[in-house]
Amino acid sequence: MALEHTVKAFDEDITRLRGLIAEMGGLAEVAIGEAMDALVKGSTELAAGVVGRDKRIDALESEVDKLAVRVIALRAPMADDLREVIAALKIAGVIERIGDYAKNIAKRTGQIEGRKKFEPLTLIPAMAEVAAEMVHDVLTAYAARDPQLAREVIERDAKVDAFYNSIFRNLVSHMMENPATISSAAQLLFVARNLERIGDHATNVAEMVYYAATGDYLADREDRTDV
Amino acid sequence: MALEHTVKAFDEDITRLRGLIAEMGGLAEVAIGEAMDALVKGSTELAAGVVGRDKRIDALESEVDKLAVRVIALRAPMADDLREVIAALKIAGVIERIGDYAKNIAKRTGQIEGRKKFEPLTLIPAMAEVAAEMVHDVLTAYAARDPQLAREVIERDAKVDAFYNSIFRNLVSHMMENPATISSAAQLLFVARNLERIGDHATNVAEMVYYAATGDYLADREDRTDV
Repeated sequence: MALEHTVKAFDEDITRLRGLIAEMGGLAEVAIGEAMDALVKGSTELAAGVVGRDKRIDALESEVDKLAVRVIALRAPMADDLREVIAALKIAGVIERIGDYAKNIAKRTGQIEGRKKFEPLTLIPAMAEVAAEMVHDVLTAYAARDPQLAREVIERDAKVDAFYNSIFRNLVSHMMENPATISSAAQLLFVARNLERIGDHATNVAEMVYYAATGDYLADREDRTDV
Repeated sequence: MALEHTVKAFDEDITRLRGLIAEMGGLAEVAIGEAMDALVKGSTELAAGVVGRDKRIDALESEVDKLAVRVIALRAPMADDLREVIAALKIAGVIERIGDYAKNIAKRTGQIEGRKKFEPLTLIPAMAEVAAEMVHDVLTAYAARDPQLAREVIERDAKVDAFYNSIFRNLVSHMMENPATISSAAQLLFVARNLERIGDHATNVAEMVYYAATGDYLADREDRTDV
């Protein structure tokens, strides 16, 4: 009876941990879309909203940390259960960073001038959409413990890398032809790089989900960005 | 007697965890210096060495993870001891990322042409030196549980940010004056950004060390990079 009680309490804690992570992931996904919106419209007001709401993601990460430590201390989980708690800690850390990348993109909004002249300003939102979808799907895979979906997320990262390579070349040509826009174009380079990193981080989470569900490691991926 | 035995075993585990982290930190610090060397000399051979040795940092992080999980499972540490193990897990994760930034810098070596023309190629190694020192000192602070040194590391991050802002402006002017070098200059922008991130990560570790030693959080830092 006592054991049953402990098991139930542990399951409730895990459900709560997973709920917090789902909330973090949802906020991070929204932040990517909103940062893009701010950037494309050049709205520093929208950008400030993204920056402000990132604090909520940070607070949720702290909550995950504290709850994970408490679960370990009180319930002394073993084997798979312990790995599940440690995975929650790690995944929360990665999502917090994804939120930071979105915040970083939003912060560049005010630094970009003459946005109508930038062809990459159509490519970048398309890239952001793929990256945000990866974040969305990897959290679905985490919630459902779905290794197949995790693997699909990992495969999709090649698309994000291809976008990045193409945007990089495009921006460099743009800079050469329009030296006056170099400062703004440099900001867009960083935006593309941040999105590429979001894809990498979603992939890292997908690898953890895959490992947790199957016990197998997927083969080491190669970095496909060439610039 | 049995308790004493457990305490001793736990202390040995913690010493081992701290040793692994010291080793990771040493390798990351060296990697920053070597990546800079590769970049300044344009040696893709040196760069390949940095990329190869990053695998050792990754392997050490896995070792920290496994040992931390085993310590928690076998010794069921409480309160401060548990926090110490969780801190080791988090710090190892941050150092692994610092190693990745150094690797990323090394990888750009082959993409930079006409390196003699770049004034930032004198500023960037100076910036790297400050960042590498931060990594060095934060690990000393961690080993010695020294909150004063941790605080000094945090303060030094302002210097790294100032370097970054100045290098960014310098590179943008350089691009405007020499459109043919834009692609190489863009690589150097990323290098400067990676160093800036290394400073941020060293600061994050310093905050954890400060908190672990004093129980106090330092006030939230503001991001001082303006580009």
